[in-house]
Amino acid sequence: DAVRHAKRPRIHTFISTSPVHMKYKLQMEPEAVLEAVTASVTRARNHVEDVEWSAEDATRTEHDFLCRCVEAAIKAGATTINIPDTVGYTVPEEYHALIAMLIERVPGADEVIFSTHCHNDLGMAVANSLAGVRAGARQIECTINGLGERAGNAALEEVVMAIKTRNDVLPYTTGIDTTMIMRASKLVAGVTAFPVQYNKAIVGKNAFAHESGIHQDGMLKNNQTYEIMTPESVGLVESALVMGKHSGRHAFREKLKEMGYELGENAFQDAFARFKDLADKKKHIFDEDIEALVDDEMAQADEHIKLVALTVIAGSGGPQKATITLDVGGRHETREATGDGPVDATFNAIKAIVPHEAKLPLYQVHAVTEGTDAQAEVSVRLEEDGKTVTGRGADTDTMVASARAYVSALNKLMTKRQKTAPEKMAAS
Amino acid sequence: DAVRHAKRPRIHTFISTSPVHMKYKLQMEPEAVLEAVTASVTRARNHVEDVEWSAEDATRTEHDFLCRCVEAAIKAGATTINIPDTVGYTVPEEYHALIAMLIERVPGADEVIFSTHCHNDLGMAVANSLAGVRAGARQIECTINGLGERAGNAALEEVVMAIKTRNDVLPYTTGIDTTMIMRASKLVAGVTAFPVQYNKAIVGKNAFAHESGIHQDGMLKNNQTYEIMTPESVGLVESALVMGKHSGRHAFREKLKEMGYELGENAFQDAFARFKDLADKKKHIFDEDIEALVDDEMAQADEHIKLVALTVIAGSGGPQKATITLDVGGRHETREATGDGPVDATFNAIKAIVPHEAKLPLYQVHAVTEGTDAQAEVSVRLEEDGKTVTGRGADTDTMVASARAYVSALNKLMTKRQKTAPEKMAAS
Repeated sequence: DAVRHAKRPRIHTFISTSPVHMKYKLQMEPEAVLEAVTASVTRARNHVEDVEWSAEDATRTEHDFLCRCVEAAIKAGATTINIPDTVGYTVPEEYHALIAMLIERVPGADEVIFSTHCHNDLGMAVANSLAGVRAGARQIECTINGLGERAGNAALEEVVMAIKTRNDVLPYTTGIDTTMIMRASKLVAGVTAFPVQYNKAIVGKNAFAHESGIHQDGMLKNNQTYEIMTPESVGLVESALVMGKHSGRHAFREKLKEMGYELGENAFQDAFARFKDLADKKKHIFDEDIEALVDDEMAQADEHIKLVALTVIAGSGGPQKATITLDVGGRHETREATGDGPVDATFNAIKAIVPHEAKLPLYQVHAVTEGTDAQAEVSVRLEEDGKTVTGRGADTDTMVASARAYVSALNKLMTKRQKTAPEKMAAS
Repeated sequence: DAVRHAKRPRIHTFISTSPVHMKYKLQMEPEAVLEAVTASVTRARNHVEDVEWSAEDATRTEHDFLCRCVEAAIKAGATTINIPDTVGYTVPEEYHALIAMLIERVPGADEVIFSTHCHNDLGMAVANSLAGVRAGARQIECTINGLGERAGNAALEEVVMAIKTRNDVLPYTTGIDTTMIMRASKLVAGVTAFPVQYNKAIVGKNAFAHESGIHQDGMLKNNQTYEIMTPESVGLVESALVMGKHSGRHAFREKLKEMGYELGENAFQDAFARFKDLADKKKHIFDEDIEALVDDEMAQADEHIKLVALTVIAGSGGPQKATITLDVGGRHETREATGDGPVDATFNAIKAIVPHEAKLPLYQVHAVTEGTDAQAEVSVRLEEDGKTVTGRGADTDTMVASARAYVSALNKLMTKRQKTAPEKMAAS
C-alpha cells in the first residue's frame, strides 16, 4: 500500500541464491528458495506492474540454479532482474560472462531489463558494472561517491563519466546532466559526513589537478595531453567573480545565482550578513566558503536552539573550559563547563543547557579552503534510540563551528523526536 | 653514476608516443621520437644491465607506431617494457588486447617483461592492471592508497588482494606480506596527509564494517556470507589487550610489541609518560590512540624546537588569542598573538618566536578515534622555495595538536634547509 500513490510505483524483492547464503543465512533448501522467488514476485505483482527481483550473492551462485531462479522470477512477472555482486567478488570478464549466460539461457530474458549491482571490495565495481552493460544489462545500480555497505558500490560519477568519455567503446547514454555531478557529490559528502578522498576519481579534490612538472608543461601546451574530460563537464567551474571585503549586496546576489543558489529575501539577508562577517576575517572568499556559509545558513533556518556566544580556553595546561550562551526558544541561557579538550568542554556546556542521552558516534573537522584563516567545517553525528542525525557548522573558528554543528544536530534530533512520538503513542 | 652503488641498479627512461603528445608536448616528428627511443635506451644500457622503457600515453598511441617503438627499445637493450595508461583512459578488454597485441607482434617480446602503469581517472585502474597481467604483463606499477597524479594510480592493496582473493581466476603470486597492508596504508596516509576515505576498498575505515541489519545477521551466522577476505589478512587486528588508566609499564610494553613497535629505552619511557597522561584524560585507549602517540613521539625525537605550553582563548567574541612557550635549542621563549580563529592565533604566536616566510598549503584535522574525548591528529604542510614538509601532532586538545604539528613541520623545514645549504654554496 505504501507505493500506491507513487508516480512510477516499483517493488524490489530479493532472496539469496548462493550455497553459502542459503545454507547459513537463510537455512533453507534450494527448492524452498525457488518457491519463495515465485511467491514474492507474484505477491509484488498483485500490487504493481513494475517489479524488480534480485538474486542476492548472484556471483557466487551455481549457474544452473541461478537460471532456474531468474526464470521463475520472470514467469511470476518480474520486469527487472538484478544480478548483485553482493560481496564485491567478481572480475569484469566473469561478470560479463554471467550476464551473457543468463540472457542466452533463460526463457523470457529478452523481455526484461537486466541490472547490475556491484560492490567495490576488490576495487572493480565500476569495471564490473560496465562489463555487465556490455553483456546486455541496461540498469546500473550505483551510488554518488561510491557509498554503500563496506567498501561501497559502483560510483555513479565514474560509471557516468566512463560512458561519456569512452562512448566509442561504451556506446550507451545515461540521460544524466554531468555538470551536476560535483554539486551532488559535495551535498552527499556533507549530509553523510563521509569525506571524499583527494585522489578519488572524478570528484576528488585532486582529480583534475596536474602536479608534476612534466604534466603541467604538457597541460600548458595543450590540455588534451593529460586531460580526457574537462573539469567543467562535471560541474567544476573556476568563477570569474572573486569576492572580498568590498563586494556588495548586488555582487553577492549575482554570485549566489551563478552558484545555483536561490534564497528567499530573509535567508539572503542573513547569508549576506555572515558573508560580510567572514570577509572581515578572511582575505579571499572562495566559492567553497560561500557554499559553506549558505549551506550552514540554510541548515540553521527555523531552528529552536541557536548559538549566541561562545568563549573557550584551551591549551596544554588543562582542564579546558567553555562558556556558552544559547538561545533556546527565545530564552538566552549561559553555562560554563570543563572537559578533556576544548571541544569536549564546549559540548559539555551545551549538554548542561540541553540535557540529553544521545551518543556521539562521529565528530569531524574539515578545512573548507586552505590556510589558517580557512573556514573549518565540522560534522557532528548524534544517535538516540537507533535514530541518527548529522549536524554541520562552518566558521573560521573551529570551536564555534563545532558548537554550531552540535546545536544543528540537536535541533534535528528534536525534530525527529516530535515526528516519531505520535507513532509511539499509537503503537502502545 | 647515481645508481652505480645500488644493489639492483635499474634506469627507467620514457618518451611520449601518442599523436597528441608528440605534436603538442614534444613538438617532434614520429621518426625523431623513434630515434630518441633507441638513443635513450642505448645510453641507459651503457650504465646498467636493467633498463625499463615506457611509452608515455601508450593507450592513445597508434598501434603500428607503438610496435615500432617497443621493438626499437627491445633492440637497444630494454629489459622491461612499460605500457602506461597515462590519462586513465582505457577499459579492461581494450588494455588486455593492447598488451596481447604487443606480445604477439613485436619481435623479441618474449624476452622482456611487460609492465602495466594505469591511472584511475575513470575508476578502472585496478581492473585494467589485472587485465594487462592476464594478457601477459608481469609487472604492475601501483601505489599504496592509490596515490598518484590526478585521481591516482592503481591501488597496490586492491591489486594484491584481488590476486589473493580470486586466485582461481587470477592465478598469480605477488610475494607481498598482506598483513602489512594496513600499517603501510596508515603510514602513507599520515606522511602525505592524504586521508583515505571511509569506503575505500581494503584500507578504508568501513571496508570491513557490516552496517545493514541483513548483512549483520548473515555475518553472525557465518562470516563467509558477506566477507571474501578477513580483516586479519590485511593486518587489521582487534587486540586482546585493552589499555586504560591502570595499565602499567609491562602491559604497555607488551602492547607495543603486539602492534609491531620497537622503541629504544628513552623513547619507550617518553611514550609511556604520554600514554599515562592520555589515560588520565580519556576513558578507553584504543590501538589508534597508541599508534598516534607513539608515531608522534617518534616524529618529535631529536628536534630543535619543542612545545612547552599553550593557552588559547577562542570563541565567537574574537579576536582569538594564543599564548605559547617553545623550547628553542634549550631556551624557553613565550609570545602572545591574536588571529582569525584560534589556530591562526596559535600559528601567529609560533611565528613570532620562529620567524619564517614558509607558506601553509595544508592544515588538516582528523579525529583518531570517536567521541569528543578522542585524540585529534593534525597535519600541517609548509612550503618554502619549492621544498615541502609535513608535520603531524596528536592530542585530545585540537589546539595543542595543531601547535605540535606546526612545530614538527618547522623542525623538518630547518633540517631540509641545512641539507640544501651546502649544495647552494657549491653551486654558486
